Amino acid sequence: MAHNIAGIRLGEALGSKALTVWIGDGANFPGQSHMGRAFERCLASMQEIYAALPEGWRLFSEHKMYEPAFYAPVVQDWGTSLLTAQALGPKAACLVDLGHHAPNVNIEMIVSRLAHAGKLGGFHFTDSKYGDDDLDAGSIDPFRLFLVFDALVDLGESGDAPAYMIDQSHNVTDPIESLIRSADEIRRAYAQSLLVDRAALAGYQADNDALMASETLKVGFRTDVGPILARARLDSGGAIDPITAYRDSGYRAKVAAARPAARGSGGGIV
Amino acid sequence: MAHNIAGIRLGEALGSKALTVWIGDGANFPGQSHMGRAFERCLASMQEIYAALPEGWRLFSEHKMYEPAFYAPVVQDWGTSLLTAQALGPKAACLVDLGHHAPNVNIEMIVSRLAHAGKLGGFHFTDSKYGDDDLDAGSIDPFRLFLVFDALVDLGESGDAPAYMIDQSHNVTDPIESLIRSADEIRRAYAQSLLVDRAALAGYQADNDALMASETLKVGFRTDVGPILARARLDSGGAIDPITAYRDSGYRAKVAAARPAARGSGGGIV
Amino acid sequence: MAHNIAGIRLGEALGSKALTVWIGDGANFPGQSHMGRAFERCLASMQEIYAALPEGWRLFSEHKMYEPAFYAPVVQDWGTSLLTAQALGPKAACLVDLGHHAPNVNIEMIVSRLAHAGKLGGFHFTDSKYGDDDLDAGSIDPFRLFLVFDALVDLGESGDAPAYMIDQSHNVTDPIESLIRSADEIRRAYAQSLLVDRAALAGYQADNDALMASETLKVGFRTDVGPILARARLDSGGAIDPITAYRDSGYRAKVAAARPAARGSGGGIV
Amino acid sequence: MAHNIAGIRLGEALGSKALTVWIGDGANFPGQSHMGRAFERCLASMQEIYAALPEGWRLFSEHKMYEPAFYAPVVQDWGTSLLTAQALGPKAACLVDLGHHAPNVNIEMIVSRLAHAGKLGGFHFTDSKYGDDDLDAGSIDPFRLFLVFDALVDLGESGDAPAYMIDQSHNVTDPIESLIRSADEIRRAYAQSLLVDRAALAGYQADNDALMASETLKVGFRTDVGPILARARLDSGGAIDPITAYRDSGYRAKVAAARPAARGSGGGIV
Repeated sequence: MAHNIAGIRLGEALGSKALTVWIGDGANFPGQSHMGRAFERCLASMQEIYAALPEGWRLFSEHKMYEPAFYAPVVQDWGTSLLTAQALGPKAACLVDLGHHAPNVNIEMIVSRLAHAGKLGGFHFTDSKYGDDDLDAGSIDPFRLFLVFDALVDLGESGDAPAYMIDQSHNVTDPIESLIRSADEIRRAYAQSLLVDRAALAGYQADNDALMASETLKVGFRTDVGPILARARLDSGGAIDPITAYRDSGYRAKVAAARPAARGSGGGIV
Repeated sequence: MAHNIAGIRLGEALGSKALTVWIGDGANFPGQSHMGRAFERCLASMQEIYAALPEGWRLFSEHKMYEPAFYAPVVQDWGTSLLTAQALGPKAACLVDLGHHAPNVNIEMIVSRLAHAGKLGGFHFTDSKYGDDDLDAGSIDPFRLFLVFDALVDLGESGDAPAYMIDQSHNVTDPIESLIRSADEIRRAYAQSLLVDRAALAGYQADNDALMASETLKVGFRTDVGPILARARLDSGGAIDPITAYRDSGYRAKVAAARPAARGSGGGIV
Repeated sequence: MAHNIAGIRLGEALGSKALTVWIGDGANFPGQSHMGRAFERCLASMQEIYAALPEGWRLFSEHKMYEPAFYAPVVQDWGTSLLTAQALGPKAACLVDLGHHAPNVNIEMIVSRLAHAGKLGGFHFTDSKYGDDDLDAGSIDPFRLFLVFDALVDLGESGDAPAYMIDQSHNVTDPIESLIRSADEIRRAYAQSLLVDRAALAGYQADNDALMASETLKVGFRTDVGPILARARLDSGGAIDPITAYRDSGYRAKVAAARPAARGSGGGIV
Repeated sequence: MAHNIAGIRLGEALGSKALTVWIGDGANFPGQSHMGRAFERCLASMQEIYAALPEGWRLFSEHKMYEPAFYAPVVQDWGTSLLTAQALGPKAACLVDLGHHAPNVNIEMIVSRLAHAGKLGGFHFTDSKYGDDDLDAGSIDPFRLFLVFDALVDLGESGDAPAYMIDQSHNVTDPIESLIRSADEIRRAYAQSLLVDRAALAGYQADNDALMASETLKVGFRTDVGPILARARLDSGGAIDPITAYRDSGYRAKVAAARPAARGSGGGIV
């Protein structure tokens, strides 16, 4: 609690407006802790943090299936995260990390359900094939990323805008390059979602024409929006090809030289 | 809706006190249906069924990850089932089928969370290794069944008792033999849970002694309660060895002979 | 065995050159069958079928994780399928159904490993989100389909060409429409794979430049090859828009009228 | 290669007779490395290590589904591990770590298949609910551990005995206590497997009596072998209750005091 409240104080200094609480608490073995009482303690602690929120702030509850707790993490899925946000009050909502779910789970449905409940708070964008792999957004399943944005575009402007964060761990690439790539993939998925003909889609859905409905959605995904994204970057003062521009800038070498005792782990380009 | 309300009428004639609603609705392809509006239609239908509940009845919402819908089943997990039961009112609660979850999901935690929310309605007992395999209770993971009963025993007598059902599909065994076995496994898990020294367990949990807490729980599971279960059956007029008694009775052959056009599928003993 | 050998005879009449053997055998419960001896019986049976192969035929062994056997299917994964093909001889190879794997499995790696072993026989194209869902190719994870074709294009022309089959169960769409769509998705993935700059890719791989290597691969996937596929269809006498052409043809209504006692299940368009 | 050959030299000094090779190599992103050539490089390296094996040694190839490589680990499953052991020669076999598989995978079948192929080398005992959780043996799914030992007991004394190792990461318990517990669980599973009436089991299997076969196997698992294990420990000079004896000994406090700069991570009891 003290740590989170200290985080709020720092956030005020930085101009933040939201706090995400993810707790790694939980049990490794059946019987190690009492599942119900552990959740009650978690809620009581969250209520103290919630009470410390400044005016205009939101609190996001983040769930994770496992790790570091390997049997019973206290906030293990969106259902428990929803109960948490409901218990806290209107300033609390749920944060969805794309890598924190059970295998095969339909994440875009969770987005839709949380929006229905008025508790969709934000995202940690990442990609994963196995566990909480923290890979670059869209690198493993770009269609899934598109479907999450499709759900978001479909929700429209109702309610508070979700908070978007990139939460990744880059260890075989230059972290800045991976951030550039992830940001590009997220924009790609968003632009593709905007291209979906939603009136036509709704018509096919109403007609129960499963094939044409799903094809209509996919037209957006199949469109190569690379050129329009490049133009948008150029128009806003950015690079047409950000990775090449970044490499040509020599930025990494410069800051590495300036850093006193760099002990780099990973990074394809040193 | 009509089908469910007709079911209520039949249930009244039979003396039932609860209705379980599981709907197979959903989409096979992204875009096929609108995830949010599909859920709203589901809720509106459920509300009509809920309004038709007789005095003293409960309604159970049952979730299932997939099948027959292979992309987006409307009530896909306990989170959506919880939202459903919350929207309906105090007579609604959630039913947990042990085979309807994503891989690796901690089912006993769901039991605990639904109890916390006041929405634990009942169970479909079954076992599974891969999907909704509908195998005999405890045949694949008997410790998981024990942990579900441990959660139930721990909850004690608070609130409405959950409804217990066996929901299985027997195709390589005689269905009656499988029912006998499943009932025995369920009683076994229940008896083992009752043997746990809960005061000692709570003490080790309070001391954060993970090893002794988990060992204390496991003492219950390791105890062979077969003899005491056999004695309890005998005392209540049942058989010490129900499978052998059933086979010796010749019941299956008798009813098979009496059945006009038996087209048996499966059944190890004919 | 008799069934498979009868299948070979029919295949000879039809001009086939290969037989796929998938057996649903296995156990539902631990202990039900002896895992080692079940496999030995399976191999002995396969050897008799193999001995009946006509000149120039191949035999494909197909694995499946589960269903109908729910605990121990005899040929449960590509490892067992490989042992089978190795035991049979040079005319035997392995068939990969994209829906028959454990959750999260990297299927394109299996393709690569089977090719390494000289035992890549062919494919059943399908898509799935949860189990053996039998959905239209590329409908759930189009990038995965692309990665399988990337592995195939990379293998080049060495050895026998794999056999390509579409193996799907369409129940919310017109099956012919789904076949048209699946064929189109497969051609799309193949065309996209051909667009990958393999010399550049190999260069980045050799330099251990993970980011540029993965981006180079993705350029192929991001390219909208729809127009060139349409042109190729037109040039070969087909339709630019096959679904619309099929619907306009009234084919389904015609054959439905001609069919004596059609009892259609599913089909979005009737 | 140098590291493994250095390991062999150390092993000779220590009297070892086997080397396990697990490599974390692989790719995080599609395209990052060439799946086929990465495996060829791996095999070439393994062949050099194999050539350095002293007389009488064995080499174990260990697979792992993911981590640290998050898209394509080079030796990702038992199929690739089998290809490796086949390529190396008769002194090579496969090692099965119980936590290194895809979700839902039937591990005891892999044991049986590797034994069939003459390539069952050994085990890393551990337990897991989600990923490579490295939990105490039998703590999550004791029936699975029993089924692995059932497969081993069934194999009997044929061929080289598998190598048994405990490979766990203890961070909420005293590591020595967890080792004591894991050793006890492994002995328990072994003793329970020895209790199975294999003649009766084979008879029910031959009769295709699925229910009685699976019940006959389970009789072993249900037997509480705790007392006989305690007696065996006592007879061999050990403690009836090893955890209590270990705690009473004050060993941990003594060695902690003697250790210069202990920076303990984890350990429930300090």
